[in-house]
Amino acid sequence: MSFKEQLTAWARQVDEALHNYLPPADAYPAVLHEAMRYSVFAGGKRLRPILVLAAAKAVGGNTDKIMPVACALELIHTYSLVHDDLPAMDNDDYRRGRPTNHKVYGEATAILVGDALLTLAFELVARCGEDCPPAAVNRVAREIAQAAGSRGLIGGQVVDLLSENKQIESSVLEYIHRHKTGALFRAAVRAGAILGGAGEAQLAALTTYAEQMGLAFQIKDDLLDIEGDEAKIGKPVGSDIKNQKVTYPSLYGLDGARRMADEAAREAVTALNIFGPEAEFLRLMMHFIINRDH
Amino acid sequence: MSFKEQLTAWARQVDEALHNYLPPADAYPAVLHEAMRYSVFAGGKRLRPILVLAAAKAVGGNTDKIMPVACALELIHTYSLVHDDLPAMDNDDYRRGRPTNHKVYGEATAILVGDALLTLAFELVARCGEDCPPAAVNRVAREIAQAAGSRGLIGGQVVDLLSENKQIESSVLEYIHRHKTGALFRAAVRAGAILGGAGEAQLAALTTYAEQMGLAFQIKDDLLDIEGDEAKIGKPVGSDIKNQKVTYPSLYGLDGARRMADEAAREAVTALNIFGPEAEFLRLMMHFIINRDH
Repeated sequence: MSFKEQLTAWARQVDEALHNYLPPADAYPAVLHEAMRYSVFAGGKRLRPILVLAAAKAVGGNTDKIMPVACALELIHTYSLVHDDLPAMDNDDYRRGRPTNHKVYGEATAILVGDALLTLAFELVARCGEDCPPAAVNRVAREIAQAAGSRGLIGGQVVDLLSENKQIESSVLEYIHRHKTGALFRAAVRAGAILGGAGEAQLAALTTYAEQMGLAFQIKDDLLDIEGDEAKIGKPVGSDIKNQKVTYPSLYGLDGARRMADEAAREAVTALNIFGPEAEFLRLMMHFIINRDH
Repeated sequence: MSFKEQLTAWARQVDEALHNYLPPADAYPAVLHEAMRYSVFAGGKRLRPILVLAAAKAVGGNTDKIMPVACALELIHTYSLVHDDLPAMDNDDYRRGRPTNHKVYGEATAILVGDALLTLAFELVARCGEDCPPAAVNRVAREIAQAAGSRGLIGGQVVDLLSENKQIESSVLEYIHRHKTGALFRAAVRAGAILGGAGEAQLAALTTYAEQMGLAFQIKDDLLDIEGDEAKIGKPVGSDIKNQKVTYPSLYGLDGARRMADEAAREAVTALNIFGPEAEFLRLMMHFIINRDH
């Protein structure tokens, strides 16, 4: 299977699994379950669940058994977007070219949709204990919660909000992205690796891969906001500049940011040197992320 | 130790543990961690964690080892209050006589405080896997997530919001309370029982206890809103009537509601008949809840 075929196949499997794990759209109370599905099936690229599966495969693990954990990462990502878009936060009306959750279902429901997706994520992680060693599942649950928590993703969002319209230093920018984006990528890769039975050296290598990949991903995101195609990224180009947001390009210039992204991508791939062909998907994934157009 | 002494001792232990589990108030980003502590240390009675401990004790389990799970239940309860109080939801300015979280820290932070408390709750449950059988911890994590999720606590809140200013039927009122309040009480008791090593008959008896106790608790809450002492309950008496909220007293009358609460309390205690003195605390707890003045 080519990289693109594997990517598409896993994305489809994740979508199917999410359909099964989410309560039916007409389950009582229907407005809540319909609204949960609205944001989960909104055209996400499923990068985080695919990273869970790819990391497990790289260490020779079974990818079917860890599907609940893969989907949990996508639910946490989705909940964070739904809450970030709220009027009290970033106040965004559109996401991936569609009205945001609260524009369709109202603020109260959107808050509860986020809460419910986050809660379901941890239900799915726990459910994985049926097919995977329970102690490993507990370890993974703990790491995912830390990555998503007040010293992870949520901490990153708080500092991001505090930094609005401020000239921040590079260390703060780095904090925001390492926590708001990086932590969940890292948890995804580590979860797949741990559940797949990684040894310590493998886990360390994959952790470096994830950290550098998360950085490259974020810089690329900033670059797309300047150089991207509006129709493809699903939101207006130049919104960071308009909102006076400090980004990698605004701090380091376009060329400087591009160099940083390339360097991070190279380090990510280098970290995989201890692996053979079983990590080829992860290598190509890094290329895919750095060359994506949306 | 008398009931009151045990109640106070456990509440103090829970408070101490919460102090240890929550990130320090000055941990970065400090505003978030300070705001988390503001709502967690707001004079809660710690009923849910105490139920976890008491249920474990009733089946001969170790209460120290399950403290993380006990605290997790309190964090979930607190997160639900912080989100329920938001302007988009119940829009409450006061809770237990103090300004609500969003009145002090703003809406964005209050949303993130709730998210962070919910996430920390699942981190604590997973952490319990260090001292308790990991498979039991997974089972408990799953039950707690279900109780807190879209077909539990969150579903109850959605239906509650949908029912505002409407004349609802008794079946809807029952749905709201069984999910919004009852589910978490039930999960608390079952978590303590499962981690304490309960047999199937014990678990079934404790589940009945929890369900009837949750109902009695809710009816008592409704009654306090009519008959209570404002200074003691920390909010204006009569707010349900003012907000035209359907409650047990509004549907069944004061006497009818009192009878229902007494009946539920009696059934709760009857369910404990298979236990000896090891469940005495739970019996007295039922009396405490039905006779409380706040």
